[in-house]
Amino acid sequence: MTPAIVRVPAARLREQVARILAAWGFPPAAVEAGADGLSWADLHGIDSHGCVLLPTYEAWLKAGRYEVAAQPRVVRDTAVSALIDGGHGLGFLPARTGMRLAMEKARGAGIGAVGVNRSNHFGAAGWYAEMAAQAGLIGVATTNTVAASVVPTAAREAKFGTNPIAFAAPSSGARPFLLDMATSTVALGKLMAASYRGKPIPEGWALDPEGRPTTDPALGYKTRLATPLGGTAELSSHKGTGLAAMVEILSGLLTGADSPVEAAAREGAQGNVGHFFLAIDPGLFGDAATFARRVEGMIAALHGARRAREDVPVLVAGDPEFRQAELRSAEGIPIPDKLRSALRAVASRAGASWLLPGS
Amino acid sequence: MTPAIVRVPAARLREQVARILAAWGFPPAAVEAGADGLSWADLHGIDSHGCVLLPTYEAWLKAGRYEVAAQPRVVRDTAVSALIDGGHGLGFLPARTGMRLAMEKARGAGIGAVGVNRSNHFGAAGWYAEMAAQAGLIGVATTNTVAASVVPTAAREAKFGTNPIAFAAPSSGARPFLLDMATSTVALGKLMAASYRGKPIPEGWALDPEGRPTTDPALGYKTRLATPLGGTAELSSHKGTGLAAMVEILSGLLTGADSPVEAAAREGAQGNVGHFFLAIDPGLFGDAATFARRVEGMIAALHGARRAREDVPVLVAGDPEFRQAELRSAEGIPIPDKLRSALRAVASRAGASWLLPGS
Repeated sequence: MTPAIVRVPAARLREQVARILAAWGFPPAAVEAGADGLSWADLHGIDSHGCVLLPTYEAWLKAGRYEVAAQPRVVRDTAVSALIDGGHGLGFLPARTGMRLAMEKARGAGIGAVGVNRSNHFGAAGWYAEMAAQAGLIGVATTNTVAASVVPTAAREAKFGTNPIAFAAPSSGARPFLLDMATSTVALGKLMAASYRGKPIPEGWALDPEGRPTTDPALGYKTRLATPLGGTAELSSHKGTGLAAMVEILSGLLTGADSPVEAAAREGAQGNVGHFFLAIDPGLFGDAATFARRVEGMIAALHGARRAREDVPVLVAGDPEFRQAELRSAEGIPIPDKLRSALRAVASRAGASWLLPGS
Repeated sequence: MTPAIVRVPAARLREQVARILAAWGFPPAAVEAGADGLSWADLHGIDSHGCVLLPTYEAWLKAGRYEVAAQPRVVRDTAVSALIDGGHGLGFLPARTGMRLAMEKARGAGIGAVGVNRSNHFGAAGWYAEMAAQAGLIGVATTNTVAASVVPTAAREAKFGTNPIAFAAPSSGARPFLLDMATSTVALGKLMAASYRGKPIPEGWALDPEGRPTTDPALGYKTRLATPLGGTAELSSHKGTGLAAMVEILSGLLTGADSPVEAAAREGAQGNVGHFFLAIDPGLFGDAATFARRVEGMIAALHGARRAREDVPVLVAGDPEFRQAELRSAEGIPIPDKLRSALRAVASRAGASWLLPGS
């Protein structure tokens, strides 16, 4: 009997993901990017953005959102910028191509900004921002989404996706600064988890169909009417609304991608998600090594801040992710039985070989 | 007898501000920038960042924070970037110089990023971002601050200032998109106003000295322990903490300015605040006119979102500010009697002529 949770070495899980993506017909470069991106999320404990997405991607594949054979194309190019047409392919490839191109331009000109359109879900935004920081650059990554789930302050219908912002900066310490946040109060995955537990959710996580805050976990997950960061009007959710709009402007409107704000602009069934990437060489403004030492110092100063409760540490953006990466590198990635079965079924339908424990 | 609130034409208030700044000995360019920036805030209803600041600036002047005769100097320069040494002068001049330089570089190379150090308080961040948008560019402005007032999640001591982010984008409509937000849940001014009213504040606005949320308005204003956006840990205040750190990295660490996170790094009594400005030409990614129409369309779609309550409109970032600018252009800027007296005293001590109503 297979235990309720198996632990799988990261490299093996990555290979399993790659086999499934390849069996779906994605070209090798897309398979590599997708397997790398999903595995990064699994390794870093961002369980909502790892292999758990494969059943969703399978459904999108069937629904015709993907142009499987697509190759990203650079359609505009300057010394500091580019626009990439993702061709409706797997989002990871045009997105990684975009971040790498932004980094290349930052190494040449000091700054690089790359937009991507006609793309699909690109996984965890933090993966892209971290690439820049690991290369000594400041990195920013944003994306919009297909479906709206976030309700602007004072409205009762969703207008934005969870529109994440990732921002990373190099540090001379063990790891970069890495902020990767949805501009909603909580991710939809948290609403789902709360609905399973059945415990009331905090006021400010989700709305009822009339646009009022609800504490009913089942209703909160069912409506999928999430709140912008801030949660309620009195706690300044207009700021989260504004951040979501900023991400929509950069990722969707600027790149020529679709936007869920403009229902009429949808281009058939194929994915036209947009991403935005920015890389900045800190050497433009001073000594890059000094900057990295100051980032390390800031992280240390925050860790050393006096605690409200002695048993609750002060965490810095990236702490949970890098801690999980360390743990999971050593112990493997935990795959609950239900997820294992779902992946097994996806692999079987795809005709991909099965590399994980259990039949 | 002078009424409790007088309404002063914007141009006259600006002239009064300019007279005071000039009487303090700031050079003409700094006087112009300061008067423009403070008046912009007064006109746009950002009352916490207009002429109300003059008594604070007077105190800082006495405390030696300003090098009155300072002229900003460009100390690093590339096709896409610059670093400006503010010389400890009035913040508005190096800051406006920085944003204008970023815009000039964006018009040339497509993108411009400018850092400013050894500066002081620069007023409302939105003023700078809006300059870019009015010129057809995407604009970003951030600043750090001298004093920490925002407590990272799980801490009990302040580590960041209110570290604002302003983001603006051009629109084909009547006004640009303009987000101007502190990364704290509410501004300190709101805590002050609540302490005057004596009504309980929402849980999540401020902390008691032990780092626990307080609803006591007097205590909340006294501690000046404000929360990061999100307000409480369960409403994701770690995201507001992360945004504050992002602003600190860009404005303070990257530019070589001081940071309140690093107490030991303070450079004597003179101001060493840092700012960061970014301008991006949307034409890098497609047709700029199409982009501006999409921004206008997004604003309209948000205004048209179904309302949670029929009597509460859905507002878009910038709505309150542009509405106030319209009203106040027509009716003048309201100056409460207490503020008028304070300005009168400042003008008198400075030896500046008095241009507002009342003796």
